[in-house]
Amino acid sequence: MSVDQAAGKGQRFFRSRWVDVPAGVEELDPAQLAPSFRAAGVACGLKASGGIDVGLLVCDAAEVSSALLLTRNAAAAAPIRVCRDECNGDQIRGVVVNSGNANAATGEQGYRDALAMRAAAAQVLGVDAPSVAIAETGVIGVPLDVDVVLAGIPRAAAGLDERGATEFTRAIMTTDKGPKFCTVTAGGVTVSAQAKGAGMIEPGFATLLCFVQTDAVIADPETELRKAAQDSFERITVDGQMSTNDTVLLQATGASGRAMPAGLLDAVLLQLALEVVGDGEGASRVGRIDVSEAASAVEAERVARAIANSPLVKTALNGRDANWGRIAQAAGMALASEQISGLSPNVIEADGLGSADEEAEIAIRLGRGEDSAHVYFCDLTHEYIRINAEYTT
Amino acid sequence: MSVDQAAGKGQRFFRSRWVDVPAGVEELDPAQLAPSFRAAGVACGLKASGGIDVGLLVCDAAEVSSALLLTRNAAAAAPIRVCRDECNGDQIRGVVVNSGNANAATGEQGYRDALAMRAAAAQVLGVDAPSVAIAETGVIGVPLDVDVVLAGIPRAAAGLDERGATEFTRAIMTTDKGPKFCTVTAGGVTVSAQAKGAGMIEPGFATLLCFVQTDAVIADPETELRKAAQDSFERITVDGQMSTNDTVLLQATGASGRAMPAGLLDAVLLQLALEVVGDGEGASRVGRIDVSEAASAVEAERVARAIANSPLVKTALNGRDANWGRIAQAAGMALASEQISGLSPNVIEADGLGSADEEAEIAIRLGRGEDSAHVYFCDLTHEYIRINAEYTT
Repeated sequence: MSVDQAAGKGQRFFRSRWVDVPAGVEELDPAQLAPSFRAAGVACGLKASGGIDVGLLVCDAAEVSSALLLTRNAAAAAPIRVCRDECNGDQIRGVVVNSGNANAATGEQGYRDALAMRAAAAQVLGVDAPSVAIAETGVIGVPLDVDVVLAGIPRAAAGLDERGATEFTRAIMTTDKGPKFCTVTAGGVTVSAQAKGAGMIEPGFATLLCFVQTDAVIADPETELRKAAQDSFERITVDGQMSTNDTVLLQATGASGRAMPAGLLDAVLLQLALEVVGDGEGASRVGRIDVSEAASAVEAERVARAIANSPLVKTALNGRDANWGRIAQAAGMALASEQISGLSPNVIEADGLGSADEEAEIAIRLGRGEDSAHVYFCDLTHEYIRINAEYTT
Repeated sequence: MSVDQAAGKGQRFFRSRWVDVPAGVEELDPAQLAPSFRAAGVACGLKASGGIDVGLLVCDAAEVSSALLLTRNAAAAAPIRVCRDECNGDQIRGVVVNSGNANAATGEQGYRDALAMRAAAAQVLGVDAPSVAIAETGVIGVPLDVDVVLAGIPRAAAGLDERGATEFTRAIMTTDKGPKFCTVTAGGVTVSAQAKGAGMIEPGFATLLCFVQTDAVIADPETELRKAAQDSFERITVDGQMSTNDTVLLQATGASGRAMPAGLLDAVLLQLALEVVGDGEGASRVGRIDVSEAASAVEAERVARAIANSPLVKTALNGRDANWGRIAQAAGMALASEQISGLSPNVIEADGLGSADEEAEIAIRLGRGEDSAHVYFCDLTHEYIRINAEYTT
């Protein structure tokens, strides 16, 4: 693909008004992984739809450094426990994933199944088991049919391709409406990333599944990834639910010999995070709530999340009702036993709720101090009820 | 009405399996207030429907003691601030109420309007202003049309009647499907109570609007009311939202010379609380989550509320999906950064979600200690979205 073609696709990935895209960024075909990475996905029968449900990803470079963020949910799934307890998180070379079954609340058998998946992946990828991460997503509390996964892994290995990001992304999709992925280049480095997430989204420090590959030099992947996640996946909520399976992985080969351009990782992760919110189960609009003049950063965050998770605010976003009273109520709840006076349309900007924009901006000034916070959220719709009442997920 | 007639109506009010009704309780016509109380309600035009929207209640006995519980929401409405700052909460004789406008987030003008309402009520009732409580419910953030209320108060006063509980109850209804009220007698005392509440329900220590009148002797109304609220209004959630206007009032004349029978106030408040949950906006089913074997009472409560407020659990209750994995996920979120192992159908009883019962029982044993808690909640339905997305409330 020529640069012109890439530029022609330029608005396809970076399309939110809230993402600051560094100068000089070009978007490439998202099927194409960053240099030295290959991926694949195959259909093994975990998904009733017959869709792609098992995937592999591997780094072929001589050197790779990595960082792995995992959910803090106390009922963490088997793959999370395997990653936490039996992986070298800073040297992840391979990844095995499946969708259709989260392998969560599956007890010791689930843990053994996750280890077996990882061992099979390590074997076909020709790497040590501790350098293979595992991620799973789908229904909770149902034993994994590990045999179909084990049968699929060699088939996936046979399909590993540097243009395999599409199949790999499909292998992690559940109720997502479409694939969330990109490949971008700037300053002589390439970043590719694949994510999934549609419901049960509110991070502890990670959220959803997201895999990022790059040939940039990143001296401290853990710090860089945490910082970028803090401003992206940590800023979103679909339904206030922390998943049992949240995983974010960054792998960097450094082969380009160039540092990651400032703001590039942040932009990629924020756009992906906004894709997740925009694809929140049943969502039709995305909102951004800005809380300012709070007495502390913690207070600002608490108020922002209370507003973003209020079903009354979320239905107002859906119904395009500029109902600033519901914002006042949610803020007041978050500050229970405190007192805030002077709440009025002068300090609560609710017009965004009622606007025609797909991306709605609302704000509240608390008049209590100088700290601020913001959170992105989606509306609550009939479709959310339909998806979650009518289907076992 | 004869005792036989009352007995024939016996199952009309106390109908939940979760309410322990003391022996010897008889249900009377709920229009009839406890002795020495009169009430009324009139239509003043605050409600677009033309329904009853302003009400008065007064105690004619020589002596009355009372207790008043108010929301802790930091954006408390004007009537809450008037009750908190300018009422003798232990000697409330009269009550003025309106629906259609909550007089919340209405600033200093709202406060002056609430004082004017209270002054007008005190005048027509012939009592001191500080012994008149005020409660309002309805839309937030819209100036109250206080003139129509002030015009209505003398008309309501003219209609005060010992059988006026129906009109008074209608004067506090908003999205409620029907009136929630009762009059019961036991052990020589009578208790009448009127409540409203349908959405925006999760108490701090009070919730919704509820007024209770009795001729029982109650030495310490505040303690008794807090205790009964703790086991009723404190145990329910519709959408996890703390209202700006929650008010619960207990008035006792002591004229019967008899003590309140053990468990009677608790039974009345719990049944009313369950009516509120069952009438949660759009609700079709009520659930009770029991959390046991928690490491502390605080932990048990946190887990119970996380499960009761999870939209994933609430939609499963709606869809009759015995999805124990969603209970595990919510419990795990509430215990973030801790670890719970062994979550399985052995310790999570989710069958109630899938049952045909209107009242569903679910339970989880955490295996971490000896404390427990329970919360009542309702399902999340298409109707909740419709009510809150399509209407300004």
